[in-house]
Amino acid sequence: MNIRSNAIVGQPGGPTAAINATLAGVIHAALEAEQIGTLYGMRNGIDGFLGEQIINLSDRFAQGRDLQELITTPGAALGSCRRKLPPFEDDPELYERLFKLFSKYDIRYFFYIGGNDSMDTVDKVAAYARERNYDIRVIGIPKTIDNDLCGTDHTPGFGSAAKFVAVTIQELLRDCAVYTVPAVTVVEIMGRDAGWLTAAAGLPQLAGYGGPDLIYLPERVFDMNAFLEDIRNALAVHPNVLVAVSEGIRFADGTYVGEGGQSGAADVFGHRYLAGTGKVLEQAIRETIGCKVRSVELSLCQRCASSVASATDLSEAFSAGEAGVSLACQGKTGLMVTFIRENEPYRCSLGCIPVSEVANRIRKVPDSYIDSKGNQITVQCLQYLRPLIVGEPALVWRDGMPVHLVLD
Amino acid sequence: MNIRSNAIVGQPGGPTAAINATLAGVIHAALEAEQIGTLYGMRNGIDGFLGEQIINLSDRFAQGRDLQELITTPGAALGSCRRKLPPFEDDPELYERLFKLFSKYDIRYFFYIGGNDSMDTVDKVAAYARERNYDIRVIGIPKTIDNDLCGTDHTPGFGSAAKFVAVTIQELLRDCAVYTVPAVTVVEIMGRDAGWLTAAAGLPQLAGYGGPDLIYLPERVFDMNAFLEDIRNALAVHPNVLVAVSEGIRFADGTYVGEGGQSGAADVFGHRYLAGTGKVLEQAIRETIGCKVRSVELSLCQRCASSVASATDLSEAFSAGEAGVSLACQGKTGLMVTFIRENEPYRCSLGCIPVSEVANRIRKVPDSYIDSKGNQITVQCLQYLRPLIVGEPALVWRDGMPVHLVLD
Repeated sequence: MNIRSNAIVGQPGGPTAAINATLAGVIHAALEAEQIGTLYGMRNGIDGFLGEQIINLSDRFAQGRDLQELITTPGAALGSCRRKLPPFEDDPELYERLFKLFSKYDIRYFFYIGGNDSMDTVDKVAAYARERNYDIRVIGIPKTIDNDLCGTDHTPGFGSAAKFVAVTIQELLRDCAVYTVPAVTVVEIMGRDAGWLTAAAGLPQLAGYGGPDLIYLPERVFDMNAFLEDIRNALAVHPNVLVAVSEGIRFADGTYVGEGGQSGAADVFGHRYLAGTGKVLEQAIRETIGCKVRSVELSLCQRCASSVASATDLSEAFSAGEAGVSLACQGKTGLMVTFIRENEPYRCSLGCIPVSEVANRIRKVPDSYIDSKGNQITVQCLQYLRPLIVGEPALVWRDGMPVHLVLD
Repeated sequence: MNIRSNAIVGQPGGPTAAINATLAGVIHAALEAEQIGTLYGMRNGIDGFLGEQIINLSDRFAQGRDLQELITTPGAALGSCRRKLPPFEDDPELYERLFKLFSKYDIRYFFYIGGNDSMDTVDKVAAYARERNYDIRVIGIPKTIDNDLCGTDHTPGFGSAAKFVAVTIQELLRDCAVYTVPAVTVVEIMGRDAGWLTAAAGLPQLAGYGGPDLIYLPERVFDMNAFLEDIRNALAVHPNVLVAVSEGIRFADGTYVGEGGQSGAADVFGHRYLAGTGKVLEQAIRETIGCKVRSVELSLCQRCASSVASATDLSEAFSAGEAGVSLACQGKTGLMVTFIRENEPYRCSLGCIPVSEVANRIRKVPDSYIDSKGNQITVQCLQYLRPLIVGEPALVWRDGMPVHLVLD
């Protein structure tokens, strides 16, 4: 007879439209795993767990009830936190407290669904456990709309965000095309260091009725004069110019284009908040070219528009959650689940990588995905992106609104 | 045997997610009407027509081909214009040229799908025709996401915009709920003079998991001190406060709250562009309360997010187009199609009203729809809004993107 131990799962960092699908995958697999007794959920990540804020997910989702609604609910059903674990030397008591709680609740499986910063936490907890010979299997499951984690073809959450960007850009193209007065629309898209999501703005051109005239990623140095020249050239071709820009584009001296329009505040990781890139460019166009111009910031909708999610993304996100449980049950630890791609036809299988090779690193858009002028993406990039947005999720609608699952 | 005359249709003003559904209704009914020979489309409204930019819609949509794709395509397939016809006395030559073109193309039916400003054009053309005994039937078919036309229960295009606002607010509520740090999210919603669309932000509360904490419409004078007190009170209840504000809220002296953040530019009708309401409030909260705060502008997506359209709205918009053709074929002129509502169960039937009673007037949100404090909507308001967003349209998706119809 198996001796069962318990498991816990957390959803730190910024939410996505797919992070609850991954949670659903963890729940589904944990309920079926013979080695796992009770699956707990951390309220607000490590932060909440340290205050013993936990929820019994095995009871809540007994017999798989409500899992489908959880899959299509945006946000992080368990709540999130922004705490990055300090190095052990800086706060040994915190680590001791954490492991006392693991012991108190007999937790031998720890799943952390997160991005870059959360993979650093996975790495530290796994390393600490190994050093103390504490038998806990710590598995990272990727999520980020930024698609900038190393070691994986793409990340859960990216496909849905990319689909929202692509669909919205296509709708804006129709909207902007109605007038004959020369006008520029600047659409600002999330992505501090990597331009994956901004690149997705190019997807509408696959449908055959055009895409953005210009696309600027943070992987290329931004030159304001070249930009304004690009705009002038585009206006010479047709009156309705649509430009997609990453919030993270920078000048040659390393300053963000958006810094002119931002407060200069930084988050707890020292990342600077950027909010003004589109507005800065709007103003520059108004002052130098003088045509009608407006900027649109896609903002938080990029990470929570579940109503326009990618079914491929949600399905892969669910599988990533299941794979995390499977790895832990095989005795693995300190790993992150990865996606491995096969093309023609597209197929995504699951792998893993030591989390130490992932934490605190950023995967940028490769050179071959950006055209030589640095103001458009290439066909190769479109081929990479296309399969990730395919399929519409089976949303449940009631009185015109999608049904969400809220954990009380 | 009937003697057939020709018809023409235009789509002036700002586009909506439903204006092509109305165009499809006009096309469908005109193709079937015995009195109508060829249906032409004005490229870019009256502007394009004066330059003889027309398209033969009878040929393009023979046997109803592509009508379904047209219905779910955002923007105005025929293109738009912002021209408001001057009074006859100011430019008699323009009127003469217009009627020479009607005569040249044997046009006896003129359908104009538009908002306030376009109904003024319908009124002027109909009046001019009557005075000259020129037999042309001029019918206005309403469209505006603002829902501010008089004489009709609601306007085509509003239901889809309201649904986008409601669904997006619900998704933002899930997203904003993940952190425990006190934070305010200010969502800025379109509507210069009437708060209908901002009121739709309250719809998520019908689902039972909460709505925005506070809602401010332009129908009430905005008081910054009261607003900041409202925010403080909301933060005392829970950490994640979400506020919906209309772009059109004004201080007691009549100045727009957003004027601090705007360019002061005005459009050709003298309407001032507002873009800074959310940003101004964000800054005020940061400076006085000092908590985490951000603003989200829903922007153009409100009028073009066909992927989250209301099936009820698209169906009613189509019917409004058909009804316009029917009125003209009955010999009526100078009328606007209206919606008449029955409740329990909701049912929308079609009527009409002299366009002179509609043009240049604005229908505001009634007092009974706004709570006594002026910072929330009432149950009555929710009951009014609810049926308008029901149903999801039959979109055609290809490779993860909705299929649009683009008229070349």
